Amino acid sequence: MSRAVYLDYNSGAPVRPEVAAAMVESLAEPGNPSSVHAFGRAARARVEAARRQLAGLVGADPAGIVFTSGGTEANALALRGCGRSRQLVSAVEHPSVLDAAAEAERIPVTRDGIVDLGALESLLAANTRPALVSLMLANNETGIVQPVAEAARIIHAHGAWLHCDAAQAMGRIPVSLRDLGADILTVSGHKMGGPAGAGALILAESGRTLAPILLGGGQERRRRAGTENVAGIVGLGVAAQLAGDDLAGADTTCGVGALRDRLEQGALRLVPDAAVIGDGAPRLPNTTCLVLPGVEGRTQVMALDLAGVAVSAGAACSSGKVGPSHVLAAMGLEERVKGSAIRVSLGWSSRPEDVDAFLAAWVGLARHKGLKVSEAA
Amino acid sequence: MSRAVYLDYNSGAPVRPEVAAAMVESLAEPGNPSSVHAFGRAARARVEAARRQLAGLVGADPAGIVFTSGGTEANALALRGCGRSRQLVSAVEHPSVLDAAAEAERIPVTRDGIVDLGALESLLAANTRPALVSLMLANNETGIVQPVAEAARIIHAHGAWLHCDAAQAMGRIPVSLRDLGADILTVSGHKMGGPAGAGALILAESGRTLAPILLGGGQERRRRAGTENVAGIVGLGVAAQLAGDDLAGADTTCGVGALRDRLEQGALRLVPDAAVIGDGAPRLPNTTCLVLPGVEGRTQVMALDLAGVAVSAGAACSSGKVGPSHVLAAMGLEERVKGSAIRVSLGWSSRPEDVDAFLAAWVGLARHKGLKVSEAA
Repeated sequence: MSRAVYLDYNSGAPVRPEVAAAMVESLAEPGNPSSVHAFGRAARARVEAARRQLAGLVGADPAGIVFTSGGTEANALALRGCGRSRQLVSAVEHPSVLDAAAEAERIPVTRDGIVDLGALESLLAANTRPALVSLMLANNETGIVQPVAEAARIIHAHGAWLHCDAAQAMGRIPVSLRDLGADILTVSGHKMGGPAGAGALILAESGRTLAPILLGGGQERRRRAGTENVAGIVGLGVAAQLAGDDLAGADTTCGVGALRDRLEQGALRLVPDAAVIGDGAPRLPNTTCLVLPGVEGRTQVMALDLAGVAVSAGAACSSGKVGPSHVLAAMGLEERVKGSAIRVSLGWSSRPEDVDAFLAAWVGLARHKGLKVSEAA
Repeated sequence: MSRAVYLDYNSGAPVRPEVAAAMVESLAEPGNPSSVHAFGRAARARVEAARRQLAGLVGADPAGIVFTSGGTEANALALRGCGRSRQLVSAVEHPSVLDAAAEAERIPVTRDGIVDLGALESLLAANTRPALVSLMLANNETGIVQPVAEAARIIHAHGAWLHCDAAQAMGRIPVSLRDLGADILTVSGHKMGGPAGAGALILAESGRTLAPILLGGGQERRRRAGTENVAGIVGLGVAAQLAGDDLAGADTTCGVGALRDRLEQGALRLVPDAAVIGDGAPRLPNTTCLVLPGVEGRTQVMALDLAGVAVSAGAACSSGKVGPSHVLAAMGLEERVKGSAIRVSLGWSSRPEDVDAFLAAWVGLARHKGLKVSEAA
């Protein structure tokens, strides 16, 4: 696969070399963090160092962090563990939120993919029962960034709590627990260059109780039983540290924004009928949801794969499934548009050559499918 | 820690070098197993290879394996997902079983730590509601091996299902799904030289439905949503493969049994008042639960830790907790005995020098505490 081009960071970013190195070091040391002997204490110290690294990235109290097996478990823990049975979720949330809160009231989004804050306020005002609202920071399919801070003010004014799934935003844009006003935040390791199998739920009020999903041990302040995935947690911590360092630079997109813009501008210039979904909305700097009218998303993905370029059609959350996108449907997009969209997502190891390889393959496909292609490159 | 001696395999075995190497290789390759492109298919292939390796160790159909974040999640999935609300659990189960099935009927154990099969049969006969019985294969604190196959016959004769938590047994004694008669089996990676953060539930009837705990994706045949911990699963697969190779040798204890016997014989010879809990019962070859009368378990653990030898008092399942053992209490042991027990557990990297270091430190403590010590070494 060495010559293949990976542009599917939103399905899972390549693990950063520093992360892998730290994990290897951790794997070489035995020890259960709950053991009282020296090996156990050393393992505990590794876990707590990672907790501080992650806390630093979002300005949280380390004691408010609950390590989980990933974003899906973190979302489930937030929704089931928070103790509030009235729940509202945006229509474009990740399936791990939608399915864990199947009875939740749905908050619509506008055609731009932005949560309808008026509708949110009406829903909250219509019922005084204390609620939990789940609103993602950035959408996994489109990269559209929600006005979470503004939503938080409305939510808190109604005595509700805000759970924010930041899985796709972490490491890509600055995320501050305080600026967002989130009460609970979901983190996923493998979206930001850490390993799959490690994630976290972060509680702004670090002492908040959560009804655990997994029972049978006092780990994670009795909020998540089970021996800690020490190496995975170490990797998540290093990924958080690296992300924080990157985002502290002058270019908070770490060059990814320029690459993504180059990709979009090239695509739109070369294929005049192409379109970018959500281009009128604030978006992550690494994601583009690109429409090649009349060419099914799955066809594009397969053609690009044959050309050695990995992208996806919608999310990669069901094995082999390339179905209709609930996200694009919630935005009210026509079948012709939403059926012809692909997601291209970049990250820390993306290079200009990757963008060029994508454009060459994609424009070739457009030409092959009979779309108008501008030869002026 | 290079000179320290690790004899706490039941809290977590050191990761085998071949496991770590395979994980490093996996971490270097991006790709979400649910993605349809080449990177995704390669990740899927790694997960499926691990599934076959694990299936091979216990004679299961690979399609019956559900990878989880560890033994705790596997036990929770078995108990909550099986669809049977009447549950019976032995009194010596791991807390992740006892706490996940808080309403379950308890099956007592004899003074030898063996499940009381007569009591099991009476409980099952007293109520015709279809039940799930959870009976561990080997106890984490004492190493006592339960008569699971015999229990299975009773359980099935009453139309009940058997869930067997084999977390501590896997890789230490041969485990065959068919010979045990288990309908559902729990596996933990880090007890057999794999990584923490990876485990599995194995279903004898591979098509059996399970109500998932984690929702929002089609992974693991819709039985466990969330992006797979690919590197962790790869590590679990390699650990299973290595365990199978080892157990297939002439000495199915891989030399660990002889080391453990050397440790027990030395301890009992040098400290005549010492005792081994469960020595009349079938036990894992790697575990000894050793009593130094009148010396608290926690005192022994700390003294040994100062001498550079890591063992535990009871299980390591609660952070820093060294409380009374429900396992030894269920066996009806006197306070003087159960309060003075430590667990010493060995494994793949244990050497005779480790046993000697343990004995030197432990016998020294016995002498210091005024116990009779035989000088004839």
